[in-house]
Amino acid sequence: MPTLQEKLIMTEQTKPALRSYLAAAADFASGQQTPRQFLERSLELLDYWEPQIGAFVTTDVPAARAAAERSTERWRAGKPLSPIDGMPVGIKDIIETVDMPTQMGSPLFAGWRSEKDAASVRALRDAGAIILGKTVTTEFAASEPRGTRNPWHPAHTPGGSSSGSAAAVAAGVVSAALGTQVIGSTVRPASFCGCVGFKPSVNALNREGSHDYQSQSCTGILGAALDDVWQVAHEIVARVGGDAGTPGLQGPDTVPPAQKPRRLAVLETGGWDSASVGAKQQLSECVMRLKSAGIEIHARGNDDKVAALETDLVHAAELSHRCNGWETRWFFRSMRDRDAGSLSRNVMDRMPKYEDMSLAEHRADLTERARVRAVHAALAANCDACITLAAPGGAPEGLASTGNPEFAVPASLLGVPALSLPLLEVGGMPLGLQLIGYFDRDADAFAIASWITSALMPAR
Amino acid sequence: MPTLQEKLIMTEQTKPALRSYLAAAADFASGQQTPRQFLERSLELLDYWEPQIGAFVTTDVPAARAAAERSTERWRAGKPLSPIDGMPVGIKDIIETVDMPTQMGSPLFAGWRSEKDAASVRALRDAGAIILGKTVTTEFAASEPRGTRNPWHPAHTPGGSSSGSAAAVAAGVVSAALGTQVIGSTVRPASFCGCVGFKPSVNALNREGSHDYQSQSCTGILGAALDDVWQVAHEIVARVGGDAGTPGLQGPDTVPPAQKPRRLAVLETGGWDSASVGAKQQLSECVMRLKSAGIEIHARGNDDKVAALETDLVHAAELSHRCNGWETRWFFRSMRDRDAGSLSRNVMDRMPKYEDMSLAEHRADLTERARVRAVHAALAANCDACITLAAPGGAPEGLASTGNPEFAVPASLLGVPALSLPLLEVGGMPLGLQLIGYFDRDADAFAIASWITSALMPAR
Repeated sequence: MPTLQEKLIMTEQTKPALRSYLAAAADFASGQQTPRQFLERSLELLDYWEPQIGAFVTTDVPAARAAAERSTERWRAGKPLSPIDGMPVGIKDIIETVDMPTQMGSPLFAGWRSEKDAASVRALRDAGAIILGKTVTTEFAASEPRGTRNPWHPAHTPGGSSSGSAAAVAAGVVSAALGTQVIGSTVRPASFCGCVGFKPSVNALNREGSHDYQSQSCTGILGAALDDVWQVAHEIVARVGGDAGTPGLQGPDTVPPAQKPRRLAVLETGGWDSASVGAKQQLSECVMRLKSAGIEIHARGNDDKVAALETDLVHAAELSHRCNGWETRWFFRSMRDRDAGSLSRNVMDRMPKYEDMSLAEHRADLTERARVRAVHAALAANCDACITLAAPGGAPEGLASTGNPEFAVPASLLGVPALSLPLLEVGGMPLGLQLIGYFDRDADAFAIASWITSALMPAR
Repeated sequence: MPTLQEKLIMTEQTKPALRSYLAAAADFASGQQTPRQFLERSLELLDYWEPQIGAFVTTDVPAARAAAERSTERWRAGKPLSPIDGMPVGIKDIIETVDMPTQMGSPLFAGWRSEKDAASVRALRDAGAIILGKTVTTEFAASEPRGTRNPWHPAHTPGGSSSGSAAAVAAGVVSAALGTQVIGSTVRPASFCGCVGFKPSVNALNREGSHDYQSQSCTGILGAALDDVWQVAHEIVARVGGDAGTPGLQGPDTVPPAQKPRRLAVLETGGWDSASVGAKQQLSECVMRLKSAGIEIHARGNDDKVAALETDLVHAAELSHRCNGWETRWFFRSMRDRDAGSLSRNVMDRMPKYEDMSLAEHRADLTERARVRAVHAALAANCDACITLAAPGGAPEGLASTGNPEFAVPASLLGVPALSLPLLEVGGMPLGLQLIGYFDRDADAFAIASWITSALMPAR
């Protein structure tokens, strides 16, 4: 019998390969394949990849197998709980699970148990999804990496803070994983690992039971394909809604059909200068192809609204960090008092910056953020969406940093949907094309993203 | 040496007596009294009352004494951290504390530790307040009582869900305590126990780290006097703001000065028929006195806007329960799966009602709630505030129920500030006069409440 490695070589799968569950599910109804078989392949890939990439903090294989058996029975009976019934998923380790610890990438929460499921996790279980395990997060979903490696090259970072979620999806171990994003924590790792990353409109997915309580933070989804990602988001919102009191993600029950955009803005935001020549070239080529497909391209040179937005976004990272700094200050104080030695230098160095901030200053920041959001909303009159890079280049070498998040910041600050689409490649490493939509119009962003993916896919 | 009971009898303190910290703090600067002395009296009262009322789940007396020593030093040096430096406070046991368990009134969380402070708790510590202990909550701050007794009569309920917070304040053990309110959990126990209860505008105080995540839930404050309550709220918001992304409680650094209202609406909301004759009579007398002080009284008979609001509030309780039912469904499912036998019949009986609710139905409820909120907001053109009873009567006999919350529901549904003022009395039990203000104008509500308190105080 061939070893797994040999099997993988035989099937040319030593490269990371995305595994869409929704594509496979077509065979579940007919009985040609079963969720249990799908999971077994996940477990093979877990065995193969996990020692190389370290995507998981905790797994529960026996529980996953039992859940896959039950799912298989439901599909066989023609009664799946949802289209994602049986989908193996990973949960970022700042999101609470009743059956596994939630350790937050910090020794201060080693073995800590919330004793409940987060709202999103409970929704996934009720939809039949299989919680294969908890994925590695940076320390408290901030900057300090926790060792996960990029499946495209183990010497490179997978990005963060949803490091393990991106790596596990890219390696095909799970078809989707929950992440979060307050700065760049979903879009960046999706870009670096070459999977789809979705940072929804702010408040669109219920965050209760997740340690991402900042005002511009979101539960994000990393997945193998747009339809897997949309479906996971939809199954969550259908069961637990958005953040309490908000309408939650708006859109159809299945992935919105592709829609060709009429006009797209090409955005050069803060950090543009740091983008690699290769990355810029890739974007230029995309833009040319979209142009030749008949799409009107707007940029700061020919659209004042784009120019105004770019100007306002120059300080997006600084403003975002100040909002987060105020909003998380009390928490880090509490942790510092428990044991400063257990906090990273990253955290300790950042804390003093926000120590003297006043409520009045924070309110001024919120007002400024609202102003910039209005500038972006006004662009809807001119353009159907914005496109830009998801990162300044491929995942950089080294595990000491999760890379530059600047390209992901604008959508975080604006509170609008952003998708990283795995359509570009620089020096053998994947790079995301980022699509930025409008607040509460996440479905429109998906429809455009679907069209662009079909239009550009052969480029890779 | 006289026993404590003898001392209390000598000083006529066998009746519950509110102990304002801000009133005492006037003597701290001069050195006539110290926070340490204030705390020692708290501890005497704790020894006397706690066996009778069971207000606390956990206390930490040595830590409180040490904190009082440090506070005394700061006052002596002329450098208190805030006007509430040294104030003994209680924390409802659904709000997280790094140094004590957070047990949520449920055996499912017996001994559970969050390993962090809630935002509000951290703010109180940074302001120098002394966390004396965790106060009894009903099961998950819902309906099932956990044994606390009313200090005015041990056979009567203290109300809930902030049962221990209200009882501890009424007994003079602490000058203020944190509670929460999503239906009637602050206003009702404040009314029953005869202390000031403040349910702020929705989102006005940061709820992070508190198990009250529903969209109309608020951190509430129960206190000895209006200025203690305002100051505690102010010190929280100054340090940790409101819920992330909101401006937080608006108003001055110290309690807003009394302001005579020009026009008040007298509200007869859902549950009016259940109010006792004595309670209605007390309210009528208040209204007559306010009228003779020159205040214009509006009611449904002479103001169409009042009539419109009363009509819309008839279903306030049902609509509130439906919103909460959807928003907490995932959590109770998670608990039921852990151990249904550890949930009260109250919870188990309520769960099926919301089991089949769809997201569309929940969105419709949110839309309806927003409509009713607009009807209330429009009343601002005619009236400076609304007054009504805080409960249908004094605390009922028996510990199996926390009493009727219906009078507290309107302000919860409307998301507006409400104060229960300990100005009325029925059959030897306290009863609150409720003042309901307008969204984000909590300071105006305090100013009017101050004036009304001065005007009506001699009535008691």
